[in-house]
Amino acid sequence: MNQPIQPKGLKSTNAVTPDAIMQLGFAFWGSKTLLSAVELGLFTLLADGPLDVDALTVQLRLHPRGTRDFLDALVALGQLERTEGLYSNTPAGALFLDRRKPTYVGGMLEMANARLYPFWGALTEGLRSGEPQNEAKQGRDLFDEIYRSPAILTEFLKAMTGLSFGAAQAIAQKFPWADYRSFADIGTAEGVLPVALARAHPHLTGIGFDLPVVQPYFESYATRHDLSERLSFHPGDFFAVAMPSADVLIMGHILHDWGVEKKRTLIRKAYAALPYGGALIVYDPIIDDERRRNAFGLLMSLNMLIETREGFDFTGADCAEWFKEAGFAEARVEPLVGPDSMVIGIK
Amino acid sequence: MNQPIQPKGLKSTNAVTPDAIMQLGFAFWGSKTLLSAVELGLFTLLADGPLDVDALTVQLRLHPRGTRDFLDALVALGQLERTEGLYSNTPAGALFLDRRKPTYVGGMLEMANARLYPFWGALTEGLRSGEPQNEAKQGRDLFDEIYRSPAILTEFLKAMTGLSFGAAQAIAQKFPWADYRSFADIGTAEGVLPVALARAHPHLTGIGFDLPVVQPYFESYATRHDLSERLSFHPGDFFAVAMPSADVLIMGHILHDWGVEKKRTLIRKAYAALPYGGALIVYDPIIDDERRRNAFGLLMSLNMLIETREGFDFTGADCAEWFKEAGFAEARVEPLVGPDSMVIGIK
Repeated sequence: MNQPIQPKGLKSTNAVTPDAIMQLGFAFWGSKTLLSAVELGLFTLLADGPLDVDALTVQLRLHPRGTRDFLDALVALGQLERTEGLYSNTPAGALFLDRRKPTYVGGMLEMANARLYPFWGALTEGLRSGEPQNEAKQGRDLFDEIYRSPAILTEFLKAMTGLSFGAAQAIAQKFPWADYRSFADIGTAEGVLPVALARAHPHLTGIGFDLPVVQPYFESYATRHDLSERLSFHPGDFFAVAMPSADVLIMGHILHDWGVEKKRTLIRKAYAALPYGGALIVYDPIIDDERRRNAFGLLMSLNMLIETREGFDFTGADCAEWFKEAGFAEARVEPLVGPDSMVIGIK
Repeated sequence: MNQPIQPKGLKSTNAVTPDAIMQLGFAFWGSKTLLSAVELGLFTLLADGPLDVDALTVQLRLHPRGTRDFLDALVALGQLERTEGLYSNTPAGALFLDRRKPTYVGGMLEMANARLYPFWGALTEGLRSGEPQNEAKQGRDLFDEIYRSPAILTEFLKAMTGLSFGAAQAIAQKFPWADYRSFADIGTAEGVLPVALARAHPHLTGIGFDLPVVQPYFESYATRHDLSERLSFHPGDFFAVAMPSADVLIMGHILHDWGVEKKRTLIRKAYAALPYGGALIVYDPIIDDERRRNAFGLLMSLNMLIETREGFDFTGADCAEWFKEAGFAEARVEPLVGPDSMVIGIK
């Protein structure tokens, strides 16, 4: 080979380095370290107070060999604090990673750790075949699996609460709720969004719509937040029955599970259930129209490849187009928090 | 539960959000996407010129379902460029991820994809047991495995070249080579460091020291860079025989493979082989003395938990202490590039 080891300019300017490549290529190390910490209940344990490396080794039943590196890696990753040898939670860890707090978002990370991390190991195969790389490879259906086992269902519903928590608070703040009296959350899971809306807006009453098996989880979550007076559960399969009627319908992390025809069907059914002047809100990690900025949205779409037969994520423009086909008079995209945006359609 | 869903202050200030937690928890998605792209040879293919999604789908033998999301995710992650529907390499991708270029660092990423990603799935088990989570779980030894199979050895040696490439260029620039005439690189693999030093400093002659099986790889790499006149291979097991003599000895990504006693042994053997005034350079992703900034170094130490029985990474202060125990008159730490630093000891 006669190619130069470095092209002109590299050596003198150092402008082109492999740093960013290597950092991304090994980003799974830090990611898995956090996921293992959540799995081990580290943040829940530290919510009771700071502990040193020896106490943590004993209480988490770890081997001494790797524990200090594990804890200090979490310090360097910004996920723990350490003062004079005592490890403690960051403010965000204390709030969002303590299993006993209702603000816990770790359910999604537990699912990522137990299921998605190994399934993503087969990403290349998924890209080659176009087929899911999860339980479906053993001929099983993800949603059948989830709804058949109470343990998996509990984990999945908590994961959805974690996934939607930030968006739920943002929707409560950013949508003009003063103009509406009622809402129905389609595919509500535990009801993290209904709870956020009802807490922020005392004039609202809301429905959580989901499969009958979800009802006790929803009612327990609503009761726990003292909101069972204004929140009720409406059981049903959103492909089989009409959607409940309300001033505002919301679908979060629902549309991306399905192929384009089922997406259109769900939007049409929402349109049919709304009064004139009513609104449909779709929220998801909506991909930017140029498809070059929202990496999380694009990766979530690859996650739908791993997890479903036809699902994919979409841009605001894609969604606005489906809204217009269904008859909505206007559709606009508004950013929420992090990678999430909402698309609002007015009937 | 009577705990509030949000503590005082969160709602009004939004100061504490789960964003950073979720971003790190899902960082394995982007990481695995890059690793799959390297596995598929995407960057090597694009080194011949830009291609659109249809051409890439065909030439990489992918299914159309996920390909566009895959490519656009790489754009959003800064690993591809896209202009009017044509995908092309970034300057860094063209230089470091084209398999045919001697600057290719993808060997390490191929190894990360094929071995480390799945092995890190067992991090929790590794933390609990203190035992490696790689081939050793089937009673096999990592290095036996590597040296037994030419295919795995080729992959491993290329990986080491990728891992050390950036540090090698930096050591060539940052060490006062004008004061020395010869060097020996202990555990040289293909010889990425000897080649970088000999290219940058025409007065230097160098030895690459490694197991006999590595010799043809070293000689091929040196010949390819027209440096076989000044670079020679010295075969041996660094625990079994004396180290070669030279003005400067270098050990990169060697010490971290071993427990503290073997680390001390290797440093003592290097001391014995050096002339007075000679230097020992140890380079690695050296952990900062406070163990709170170099996340990659701390995670590399967890990687040594996954990969070895006793290995661990260390701080500059740890290494300087071992240097002094071995008799070195002075020891200092100098940053190289990215997470790598070198510790220099003078006899």
